[in-house]
Amino acid sequence: MKILIVGAFGTIGSAVHNDLASRHEIITAGRNGADLTVDIRSPESISAMYQRAGKVDAVINTAGDAHFGSLLELTPELNEIAILSKLKGQINLVLLGMHHVNDHGSFTLTSGIVMDDPIKGGASAAMAGGAVRAFVQSAAIEMPRGIRINHVSPTLLEESISTYGPYFPGFEPVPARRVVQAYRKSVEGSQTGQTYTVY
Amino acid sequence: MKILIVGAFGTIGSAVHNDLASRHEIITAGRNGADLTVDIRSPESISAMYQRAGKVDAVINTAGDAHFGSLLELTPELNEIAILSKLKGQINLVLLGMHHVNDHGSFTLTSGIVMDDPIKGGASAAMAGGAVRAFVQSAAIEMPRGIRINHVSPTLLEESISTYGPYFPGFEPVPARRVVQAYRKSVEGSQTGQTYTVY
Repeated sequence: MKILIVGAFGTIGSAVHNDLASRHEIITAGRNGADLTVDIRSPESISAMYQRAGKVDAVINTAGDAHFGSLLELTPELNEIAILSKLKGQINLVLLGMHHVNDHGSFTLTSGIVMDDPIKGGASAAMAGGAVRAFVQSAAIEMPRGIRINHVSPTLLEESISTYGPYFPGFEPVPARRVVQAYRKSVEGSQTGQTYTVY
Repeated sequence: MKILIVGAFGTIGSAVHNDLASRHEIITAGRNGADLTVDIRSPESISAMYQRAGKVDAVINTAGDAHFGSLLELTPELNEIAILSKLKGQINLVLLGMHHVNDHGSFTLTSGIVMDDPIKGGASAAMAGGAVRAFVQSAAIEMPRGIRINHVSPTLLEESISTYGPYFPGFEPVPARRVVQAYRKSVEGSQTGQTYTVY
C-alpha cells in the first residue's frame, strides 16, 4: 500500500513508520524534515499536501497539539490550540482528503486516554479526543467507495515517561510497539468506525 | 436557586424553563426575546451576558447549532458552524462563566444521541457532542468551589418529529418532559461529570 503518515517524526509517528515501512510505500508529512511539509492547522496546507502526495491507500495522522494546564487558567484562546490542531486539523485531513484516498483505503486518526480517564490539566485534550471519537464513528457510516476510518487512543507511552509521566500518576505506560499494532490493525485490517484503545 | 438558561426558547429550553420556574428564579438568555441577549459563538457576548446576569447558582445551556448534511458535502467551513456554536459556544460558557457561578453551583450542557448512535448527515453534530462529553468529564475533576458540571444527551423529541423525524429512522422519540428530568437531576442533584442520556 501507499501510506501517507502525517506527524511521522513524533514518538508514535516514527514507531508507526518503522513498522509499516517494511511492508508498504511510505510518504511522510510534517512541519519540517518530511517528504511533504504540512501544517494541519491550515486547510490550505492540507489541500496542498494532498495535491503533492497524489492518490494514496491510507492516511495516518499522529500529529496534533493541545494545551495542558489548569482548567482555572484555560482561556478560550488556549483552548483554541487543541481546536485548531488536534480537533479540526485531524477532521480536515479527512474532509479534504477523501477524494485523494483510493477505493477501500483508510484514515486512521489519534485521540488519547484523557478523553476516557481524566487527568488534571487535560480538559482541552480530552475535548479534542472526544470530538475525534464521535466524528470517526459517525463518518464511518457515510464514507464513500469502501473507505474506512478508525482512530487509536493510546495511553502514556513508556518512551514518554520522562516528559509526561508526572501528569499521569498511576497510569500504566505501554511501549510504543503496542500502540503501533493498533495503527496496523486499522490500516491492514477491515474494520471501520472503531476506537482502538491501547490501555 | 438563581438559574441562567441559555437557549431558553428552544423546544428543550422552554420545557426546562417551564419546569424549573415553579421552584427557582430564572434568568433567560438567547439570541432575541430573552432577559439577556447572547450569541454563544462570541466570547465577548458570553462575557457581557455574565456581567449583566450577576452571580448565579446554575447555568443551563440548551443552545447550539450544527450543520446536518452528507459527509461528502461537509466542508471545513460547514463544520465550523458546529465548532463555533455547539462546541466552543458551550465550552466557553463554562470557561468564561466559572467565576460567575456561586459555590456548589452547576453547569449543565447539551450534547445529543448522534454522538452515540450515528445518523446520516450527523457527523458534525456528533463531533460537537463528543467534544462536550469528554470536556465535561474532564473539567468535573478540576472545577473550583464545589461547582459541578454535567451534560444531557437527548434523543429525538416527540415534539420535534415533524422537523427531524425523517433523519432518525427507527429512533424511539421521547417526550420533552422526560428530557427535562435530566436537566433537573443535574441542577438539583449532587452528581458531577455525568452524561445523562435520555434514550
